[in-house]
Amino acid sequence: MPIEPFDAVDVIAAKRERRRLSDEQIAWVIDAYTRGAVGDEQMAALAMAIFLNGMEDAEIARWTRAMIDSGERMDFSGLSKPTADKHSTGGVGDKITLPLAPLVAVFGVAVPQLSGRGLGHTGGTLDKLEAIPGWRADLTNAQLMAQLEEIGAVICAAGSGLAPADKKLYALRDTTGTVECIPLIASSIMSKKIAEGTNSLVLDVKVGSGAFMKDREAAHRLARTMVALGREAGVDTSALLTDMSTPLGLTVGNALEVRESVEVLAGGGPADVVELTMALAREMLAQAGLPDADPAAALADGRAMDAWRAMIAAQGGDPDAPLPAAAHTDTVLAESDGVLAELDALAVGVASWRLGAGRARKEDPVQAGAGIELHAKPGDEVRAGQPLLTLHSDDEERFARAREALAGGVEIAPATSAAATAARRATVILDRVS
Amino acid sequence: MPIEPFDAVDVIAAKRERRRLSDEQIAWVIDAYTRGAVGDEQMAALAMAIFLNGMEDAEIARWTRAMIDSGERMDFSGLSKPTADKHSTGGVGDKITLPLAPLVAVFGVAVPQLSGRGLGHTGGTLDKLEAIPGWRADLTNAQLMAQLEEIGAVICAAGSGLAPADKKLYALRDTTGTVECIPLIASSIMSKKIAEGTNSLVLDVKVGSGAFMKDREAAHRLARTMVALGREAGVDTSALLTDMSTPLGLTVGNALEVRESVEVLAGGGPADVVELTMALAREMLAQAGLPDADPAAALADGRAMDAWRAMIAAQGGDPDAPLPAAAHTDTVLAESDGVLAELDALAVGVASWRLGAGRARKEDPVQAGAGIELHAKPGDEVRAGQPLLTLHSDDEERFARAREALAGGVEIAPATSAAATAARRATVILDRVS
Repeated sequence: MPIEPFDAVDVIAAKRERRRLSDEQIAWVIDAYTRGAVGDEQMAALAMAIFLNGMEDAEIARWTRAMIDSGERMDFSGLSKPTADKHSTGGVGDKITLPLAPLVAVFGVAVPQLSGRGLGHTGGTLDKLEAIPGWRADLTNAQLMAQLEEIGAVICAAGSGLAPADKKLYALRDTTGTVECIPLIASSIMSKKIAEGTNSLVLDVKVGSGAFMKDREAAHRLARTMVALGREAGVDTSALLTDMSTPLGLTVGNALEVRESVEVLAGGGPADVVELTMALAREMLAQAGLPDADPAAALADGRAMDAWRAMIAAQGGDPDAPLPAAAHTDTVLAESDGVLAELDALAVGVASWRLGAGRARKEDPVQAGAGIELHAKPGDEVRAGQPLLTLHSDDEERFARAREALAGGVEIAPATSAAATAARRATVILDRVS
Repeated sequence: MPIEPFDAVDVIAAKRERRRLSDEQIAWVIDAYTRGAVGDEQMAALAMAIFLNGMEDAEIARWTRAMIDSGERMDFSGLSKPTADKHSTGGVGDKITLPLAPLVAVFGVAVPQLSGRGLGHTGGTLDKLEAIPGWRADLTNAQLMAQLEEIGAVICAAGSGLAPADKKLYALRDTTGTVECIPLIASSIMSKKIAEGTNSLVLDVKVGSGAFMKDREAAHRLARTMVALGREAGVDTSALLTDMSTPLGLTVGNALEVRESVEVLAGGGPADVVELTMALAREMLAQAGLPDADPAAALADGRAMDAWRAMIAAQGGDPDAPLPAAAHTDTVLAESDGVLAELDALAVGVASWRLGAGRARKEDPVQAGAGIELHAKPGDEVRAGQPLLTLHSDDEERFARAREALAGGVEIAPATSAAATAARRATVILDRVS
């Protein structure tokens, strides 16, 4: 056993007493945790002390660097084109990566989207694409580089060598009540993104019931923290604050969200999904040195759809194959006339998860066809008895518990009420941080 | 696996958000932790949340009860005499239990002192008594009861069945920076003491550099919390706040402290040790219904010494055998004329530990002869070149590191200085809480 230069108890006690951790303490504690010389119980105590006492910007930057240093870094400098990356802090119905990556790739930008699977009520990008017959998430490094060079867009599984300290800490935070903490969220996201080696990064920071950040001020702080971390590491970084009080688009679930993404690529799709896709595309293209690129044209003339088909086919997927559908559906009707004032993102996310679209544990399978279709969005007028939601699942017995999750998450208000007016005025993009 | 009624993350999050834990949550989390259904990393996060956000009195009481309920309870109701117990929060040179138990037993009171071994810079009562040739710490329950009935005083190892949740949590706190926390200290001490089933209890709450509680206000809060917990459980409880800024008496170390204890039992010994022993004896005797008992007489006429000899002999010890002595000594001299203004308890405790009197890990052995003799106490006049301390160890190479620990812990001030005046005025008993 090596002689350790620090004692974990001293590092924990320092943060417990609101002292700033030294660069050396941070580098050591992350490295020692990755090696197992600092135990899970010690890191849990430290994470709670950080949760309650915070970290200064310089500490967060050092913490992030230590997590990057715990593993490999990718290198896209051999490509003939610039790289641009997007990361969402996670939400319900957030399928934006699917249309966005091929759309940006149309303009000669490499878009490496190293993604994960879903856990809990938010879906995972890989789970969605795996609904496409034949598509596979795992690529070798050589396949990834070749696809970026030829097609430009890649959505694939992140290698296990990137920021292993973050992987270990992320799993620990999940079981120790230390998730919703800005320094730990920011360093977790940014360590992975910086290790991936992109030139530029746009962050989609979600705010609302379906997001980690329930209020706008906290989301703003998270966005500022992450933008600063990216800049310091030489990555051109900006962030959009976007609404996650209600699901994005009209579908939640794996195959259902692929279908909606293809609608957007065909020039249609729900207004909020199109608006957010375009806004993120413009951010990425500007960062890649193409401020005058016209992504709307690439949607309209079919170039984005061509890039999508090439991207799916390159990873073994059949873009023309019919998508899987769930065996059963169940329709939720509006209970009164009025305006849909609320359709809560968390309630819909949990309901979709219970229908089989998400997993409770890492090793669980997901149902490709499960999920929820929305027939109205907040602000829309509805009539008593009209379909509001269609639930999809392979197991009929899941409908009851999904409806339980929705209870209290759907609110219809009189057309002249303040709630109805507020719902009509809601916008998806709330702010920009750069 | 049983279906658990709570999720550990919800309990952790409640305390993290400064909410009061429910009785059911507390009972469950302690039981589940004892069973292993709540992991060390989860309890560590909860302990840190408790450390930083506190617990209300009702929560501490429920937490204490849950730890008692995790194991067995002892029952002394079959004895023909009342039981009285003393507990010290731990200090340097604190050998008071040794003369105190036989002194109180003289008056027909049963004194079951279930004790532990030392860890870190504070010595353990069992380590001290094990310096006596032949003496053994482990008694069966039947032996314990018989000795209480016949002799009245027993100092022995606590059985492993008492408050097993506390044993597990105590070890966890030691490695996760969650030791110095009043709710957790109070519930740890009181769960063990209440499970031991004594009728009455006197707490010796230490304040100062050599104690957990560095300041008087915190020590007072700890004392009040523990007295309330004892009362609620039907144990007549009071507390003395006593000084631990400098070692108690003139010896620190196992055999050295036994020697000093025997001096006290013979009617001599250092003034502070005699004063504290008498004060604690009077508290215990009053609680046992003997407010007029005269412990000074029992020291003067040899009855306390007789009880000591009987107690040691009953556990296999030879009260007449010479005590082990260390192989080497090293004398620290005064560097100037003046008044000894400071002789820091923590510095002396760490030095004694480094000489071999204490252990770094539970399984380490201790040296019976190692320790420190003090030739002056704060407030005493000293001359340059006179011996201040004699260090004892079986290993000569330990002297250098012990002297390092003492550096900065010894201060000689001009006789007319404020520091000298303050040192002359210091008293061992600071306050009483009942």
